[in-house]
Amino acid sequence: MARIVMKFGGTSMAGIERIRTVAERVRREWAEGHDVAVVVSAMAGETDRLVNFCREASSLYDPKEYDVVVSAGEQITSGLLAIALQAAGVPARSWLGWQLPIRTSDGHASARIGDIDTAALNASLANREVAVIPGFQGVAPGERVTTLGRGGSDTSAVAMAAAMKADRCDIYTDVDGVYTTDPRIVPRARKLKRVTYEEMLELASVGAKVLQTRSVGLAMKEGVRVRVLSSFDDAHNADGYRGTLIVGEEEIDTMERQLITGIAHDKNEAKVTLTEVPDRPGAVGAIFGPLATGGINVDMIVQNVAHSSGSTDVTFTVPKADLARALDILEREKAAIGFNRLVHDPRIAKISVVGVGMRSHAGVAATMFQTLGDRGINVQAITTSEIKVSVLIEEDYTELAVRVLHTAYGLDAEEVD
Amino acid sequence: MARIVMKFGGTSMAGIERIRTVAERVRREWAEGHDVAVVVSAMAGETDRLVNFCREASSLYDPKEYDVVVSAGEQITSGLLAIALQAAGVPARSWLGWQLPIRTSDGHASARIGDIDTAALNASLANREVAVIPGFQGVAPGERVTTLGRGGSDTSAVAMAAAMKADRCDIYTDVDGVYTTDPRIVPRARKLKRVTYEEMLELASVGAKVLQTRSVGLAMKEGVRVRVLSSFDDAHNADGYRGTLIVGEEEIDTMERQLITGIAHDKNEAKVTLTEVPDRPGAVGAIFGPLATGGINVDMIVQNVAHSSGSTDVTFTVPKADLARALDILEREKAAIGFNRLVHDPRIAKISVVGVGMRSHAGVAATMFQTLGDRGINVQAITTSEIKVSVLIEEDYTELAVRVLHTAYGLDAEEVD
Repeated sequence: MARIVMKFGGTSMAGIERIRTVAERVRREWAEGHDVAVVVSAMAGETDRLVNFCREASSLYDPKEYDVVVSAGEQITSGLLAIALQAAGVPARSWLGWQLPIRTSDGHASARIGDIDTAALNASLANREVAVIPGFQGVAPGERVTTLGRGGSDTSAVAMAAAMKADRCDIYTDVDGVYTTDPRIVPRARKLKRVTYEEMLELASVGAKVLQTRSVGLAMKEGVRVRVLSSFDDAHNADGYRGTLIVGEEEIDTMERQLITGIAHDKNEAKVTLTEVPDRPGAVGAIFGPLATGGINVDMIVQNVAHSSGSTDVTFTVPKADLARALDILEREKAAIGFNRLVHDPRIAKISVVGVGMRSHAGVAATMFQTLGDRGINVQAITTSEIKVSVLIEEDYTELAVRVLHTAYGLDAEEVD
Repeated sequence: MARIVMKFGGTSMAGIERIRTVAERVRREWAEGHDVAVVVSAMAGETDRLVNFCREASSLYDPKEYDVVVSAGEQITSGLLAIALQAAGVPARSWLGWQLPIRTSDGHASARIGDIDTAALNASLANREVAVIPGFQGVAPGERVTTLGRGGSDTSAVAMAAAMKADRCDIYTDVDGVYTTDPRIVPRARKLKRVTYEEMLELASVGAKVLQTRSVGLAMKEGVRVRVLSSFDDAHNADGYRGTLIVGEEEIDTMERQLITGIAHDKNEAKVTLTEVPDRPGAVGAIFGPLATGGINVDMIVQNVAHSSGSTDVTFTVPKADLARALDILEREKAAIGFNRLVHDPRIAKISVVGVGMRSHAGVAATMFQTLGDRGINVQAITTSEIKVSVLIEEDYTELAVRVLHTAYGLDAEEVD
């Protein structure tokens, strides 16, 4: 008998027919004798509808009231799933955030989960009741409703799994696992059986949008075994295992470890370069301080050694949606920063190769530059971390770059299904 | 400075533009220095949508989970109105049922309001904050969400007004008051300035669907001054007063008291007659006991003195929607009841004349029968209460009957606006 958290996203909860399918999946786990808690998202589109109501009511909406409004979406699906489970013969009840309670910070609209009280929940599970828990919501000190920020239901599920000391946290979604790269670009992409938390963080944050980044970080911190699998497709891997397991590095057999786990791409960033920034202490702070104050999330940052002139060029990326605002801020700070020219280019893509195996292997970066160079793809900037090499290239070459790298690192499947 | 409860129905809350209009109405009362609590319904159509989800999920849905689902509609509008009020410069916050709390019985899906804790609310009002309260919801012992049954938001508003010792409970709706009869049938129907709780109960329960019957009963019990007025039309009565005030009899000036206050009609009932029911103790119980057990709400009951044969005919009405089920139950109980024939007719209407003035005046019923007889309208059954005379007639004559009675009792307005 295991303790399992099952999490279903908005697509899986979109309408009563699908909720019935979810109930059947839950029933099967429950019928095997497991203790089951289910974390649900709102129906697909519902959170957008509610967020738009708030925005329409006031562009400067009170996040406390926003939380009251948008948390209703998950409240609805949790009650409906409890009803569907009962109809399938499974004793079940919903537990709203304030009922358990799931305590959070008072950072409304993007609260952080603190303590989850599991006393009542455990008593209910011991009675063979399935617990249905709305994701994305909690309650702040002062008993106000909170939400965790978009995509927060993944985090709710991992936090519940940690609090319940669950053996597994199964995230049901509309893909059947984590792939070596985007299968729409590379039909021979392979589904990964296992991936480490660190690799998943790098893959997620560079564009493999399977799991919310925060939830992976929390799973790593709490040691929660997370599995990503399809809500719609029951097909098993050849070895009878479904989906992709996200675990600590120690759980991955050295034998099955690949040099490179996957190739990610991201077209949502724009490149900004400031030329001839004075090479002196505080210069970089003068650039990124005002951007942070403006709420702009800077991703890659590249700064080379100073020119002989005593100045340097600084290149970084910002979300395309924030580019205009970032340029505004930098122009305003021009005197304080002391750069010469401000150059920008939204037509770029970031390509990353990720893998814990590269720690012990030289030549990963070299293979990447060689492979791209052979196809005439110019590398505009490079950053590396312990388990990742990222480059910026011209956007039009994205698919070609992903495809040739996937082959170069030996990731192509033997044959296409 | 007064304490005021304002209640807005689903049509008034249907979309952000209308919620903004509501916020402006609330702002005006607040700006005059009043303490204001606002009770809101879900957006028009939303509760139906949520109820249908529950029914689709299971025809035998758990009312505890139904309450979790359907209470979300008012949660959404209360948050949105708080946002709209803040945007209009009015400090405001929402208070969900469990937050105040509004304690109810555990009769899920049709709970009764018990205690409302007003300590936190009063502190908030004393800070010049407007309180926005979702109608229709509360919390049962054991901290489960409850709802009060359809139309329950009127009851929430009256209960809030009683708990807050409010000076007035203003029910904003899509009509501008209570009329002497349905203005769609009688264009010369007059809007009543005042009506007693008792009259309103009779008018509401016989078809003038302005206020939920339960809320009127509660207002009478608690002595809450209720006003019904339009959410869309700012027109005032000639004397500067808006809407219709529902108050105790003692508040209505003898001079302005009418013999008859209004004429109501109801086409939603069907007539059932059992012939030759044995005239013995327990016979009537054998009929209505099984119907009550079947959840069928019997309205009019007419039983005449026994025939010389020692048996009697019993006539009563049930909702048209329940007719088939009622007939089933009665056929099953035929031996136990011992009737001869079971006759039914769904094509009937109930017409009622209502007025506290009739207590002290003979001849009200006589005028009714005379007026209907003159037009060749046959009276099929009659019941009377202290302030009401109701008759059953053939459905096709409904509008004619209402019109001639309205004239006969001198209710026609001098001229049509």
